[in-house]
Amino acid sequence: MLRSLLNQTSLTVAGIMSGTSLDGIDVALVRIDGCGVDAKVEVLHFESFAYEDELREKLKELCSIEHSDVSLLCGMNFAIAERFADAVLRAAAAANISLEQIDLISSHGQTVWHIPVADEANPFLPKSTLQIGDLSVLAKRTGRPVVGDFRTADMAVGGQGAPLAPYGDFILFRHEEKGRILQNIGGIGNCTAIPASASTDAHRLIAFDTGPGNMIMDQVVFELSQGRLTYDANGSWASIGFVDVELLNSMLADPYFKLPPPKTTGRELFGKAYASSFLATALERGLPPEDIVATATSFTAHSIARAYNDFVFPEYNIAEVIVSGGGAHNQTLLGMLRELLPEQSILTSDELGLSGDAKEAVLFALLGNDWIHGVPNNLPSATGAERPTIMGKLALP
Amino acid sequence: MLRSLLNQTSLTVAGIMSGTSLDGIDVALVRIDGCGVDAKVEVLHFESFAYEDELREKLKELCSIEHSDVSLLCGMNFAIAERFADAVLRAAAAANISLEQIDLISSHGQTVWHIPVADEANPFLPKSTLQIGDLSVLAKRTGRPVVGDFRTADMAVGGQGAPLAPYGDFILFRHEEKGRILQNIGGIGNCTAIPASASTDAHRLIAFDTGPGNMIMDQVVFELSQGRLTYDANGSWASIGFVDVELLNSMLADPYFKLPPPKTTGRELFGKAYASSFLATALERGLPPEDIVATATSFTAHSIARAYNDFVFPEYNIAEVIVSGGGAHNQTLLGMLRELLPEQSILTSDELGLSGDAKEAVLFALLGNDWIHGVPNNLPSATGAERPTIMGKLALP
Ligand SMILES: Nc1ncnc2c1ncn2[C@@H]1O[C@H](COP(=O)(O)OP(=O)(O)OP(=O)(O)O)[C@@H](O)[C@H]1O
Ligand SMILES: Nc1ncnc2c1ncn2[C@@H]1O[C@H](COP(=O)(O)OP(=O)(O)OP(=O)(O)O)[C@@H](O)[C@H]1O
Repeated sequence: MLRSLLNQTSLTVAGIMSGTSLDGIDVALVRIDGCGVDAKVEVLHFESFAYEDELREKLKELCSIEHSDVSLLCGMNFAIAERFADAVLRAAAAANISLEQIDLISSHGQTVWHIPVADEANPFLPKSTLQIGDLSVLAKRTGRPVVGDFRTADMAVGGQGAPLAPYGDFILFRHEEKGRILQNIGGIGNCTAIPASASTDAHRLIAFDTGPGNMIMDQVVFELSQGRLTYDANGSWASIGFVDVELLNSMLADPYFKLPPPKTTGRELFGKAYASSFLATALERGLPPEDIVATATSFTAHSIARAYNDFVFPEYNIAEVIVSGGGAHNQTLLGMLRELLPEQSILTSDELGLSGDAKEAVLFALLGNDWIHGVPNNLPSATGAERPTIMGKLALP
Repeated sequence: MLRSLLNQTSLTVAGIMSGTSLDGIDVALVRIDGCGVDAKVEVLHFESFAYEDELREKLKELCSIEHSDVSLLCGMNFAIAERFADAVLRAAAAANISLEQIDLISSHGQTVWHIPVADEANPFLPKSTLQIGDLSVLAKRTGRPVVGDFRTADMAVGGQGAPLAPYGDFILFRHEEKGRILQNIGGIGNCTAIPASASTDAHRLIAFDTGPGNMIMDQVVFELSQGRLTYDANGSWASIGFVDVELLNSMLADPYFKLPPPKTTGRELFGKAYASSFLATALERGLPPEDIVATATSFTAHSIARAYNDFVFPEYNIAEVIVSGGGAHNQTLLGMLRELLPEQSILTSDELGLSGDAKEAVLFALLGNDWIHGVPNNLPSATGAERPTIMGKLALP
């Protein structure tokens, strides 16, 4: 069966992704022709399955040093694989695709821990990452071959095991004539810049975290609304405020923005503490709430535009910026980006026909497809790996 | 590279085993012709690598609910894989075999937890098992393809994921004209009975735990020597004692011995508590130490012989009993077995040219070889699985 799988040039693949937010399981059923950066993808079906509350609570225990233990990990590795199997069965049924028509399942797994930098004081905590959802359980339960557990391989060749998204961005969105930037605005902002090119050289792309995404806006809105709002829906609050340019400029002076890519950031820098201190300064300056929200929104917009100006535009001509993630719903933010980037069209990935969630599940379908074709599927330019390598492990049904 | 691997009929495989006693890593370099039960194996090299004390202590922490956590598991999964890679490199160097000559590495992994029966009260603790030593890290570090992490697949099709040894026993020791029993005497005793046969039907073998191995003898010797001795070296203490037949018979009345196979037992039944209660009774009866040790030794011998008489001999003609494990060094025990089994030759596996340790590492080489050949490598008759299935996952270099 493996031999015949290796000989197929076109595969129907179920890509499975479940993110660190522990919200549930995304399944994309796709048809893939070819492999590597020349793969052509058609999305047949996309569906999300929320974790039940009880399971999410157990996952949270598992993701904490205090509440996790080896027994729970042993059990959950199987239990989660059963959920993955269930999600594939349900997605296939909803799409009216029989299991036999699915040539391959490709599963990211549920991340439960990640050690991005080796603990110098403890040789037993090297740079490492841990995704659960046993591949054999998933294969035996569905009767389909399964590739998965990708990130460890990139780390084993010196990479960070992340970000993997730029590879999918490149395959799904690169354009012969238009240079494009894929801008995701989740908690943090991150971008993948892809030059217009007839070439298939994925190594030329530039990928990095631009800085804050929604995180500071969300926290400020939460505090200013005394907890009634968790985010500025559609950016309507920010839309009636004025930006405090002096305050904005002081924030843009942060050294992070000067660092050349590749670079990553997170809650440690642009998180709750940053938001509280910004809010305190803004209130001291006597700003009304709408101005504070507008200034926070403008901070995200400027940090993105400035990153392009400093690190992308000097290298590549960019015609379009394609925004995804929750921030793509913030019209004020999009409006600011349009003003700051007059030369570029600002679009959302939904406008191009692919939702942000589906994008990730499709990515993992592509990675599994590459494994079967024997094609390296990591991107050293994004992860920092020493070399291209084949990520993933194969389990048979 | 995978394609060409799948087309080879003869492979050089490095089998890696590390047992639950956490003593270290066994590596067998073998040449295998063919696959499945018809595989022909030649052992090129065998070597053991002890874990350093610090690593063993960390593994012990990892194997306990109290001291384990998700971060340590994440790190150790990588750290142990690095040790496995190191062991293969060193074994290959010692054998004067270049890494390029090794077609495949096959790794059992380090067991850190095992849930043999689902916890009915907790849906997140299903029947499951957990072996660490990331296959991708091992593959990238050695530059060789790696198959491993076998047990989960057998469990996923309803088996116990154990014992796997009978499959290797069958391939290595079955004989056209002689029925054989492979008797391992570790903490517990377990046997694999293989009828003489031209057939290759592994499903006809009978495998089960016979009862106590060295565990009760060891504990009794430890207490009677006030902790000076941990076992009865070569059975010399027992050799000068007399067996208390009444006490022996009362122990042989334990219902475990009447249970038909397949059956497993462990420390829960024939462990420390059992040994202490036996010792108390023996002292009450006024037995001198040598008689007590002789009676404990005789208990193991009788439980083994009786198991054959009740469950094996009615089914198959057995000509040879081949003893392995630490108990094979106990001459008094072997002598008792010879008396109780006058129709059979009692041999040690070392006398047949394969050490007990090497046997296990060779087994895993065979299991990986089968994966490559697309051959089911579990034995439902031994593990209780619903069906034969291909165990293991493949990671590419
Ligand atoms: N209609 C909307 N208007 C404005 N902002 C929105 C809207 N819907 C979602 N958001 C923003 O998007 C956020 C969620 O974004 P998303 O789902 O991309 O984040 P995430 O997946 O948790 O992030 P990450 O990519 O960092 O894992 C919300 O917290 C909110 O700030
Ligand atoms: N020279 C000897 N004479 C008598 N008994 C011996 C001798 N050497 C080892 N043993 C016995 O063998 C035991 C170790 O056996 P072995 O290494 O097979 O156990 P193990 O691998 O821990 O067991 P298991 O197979 O249950 O995992 C010792 O505890 C001792 O009882």
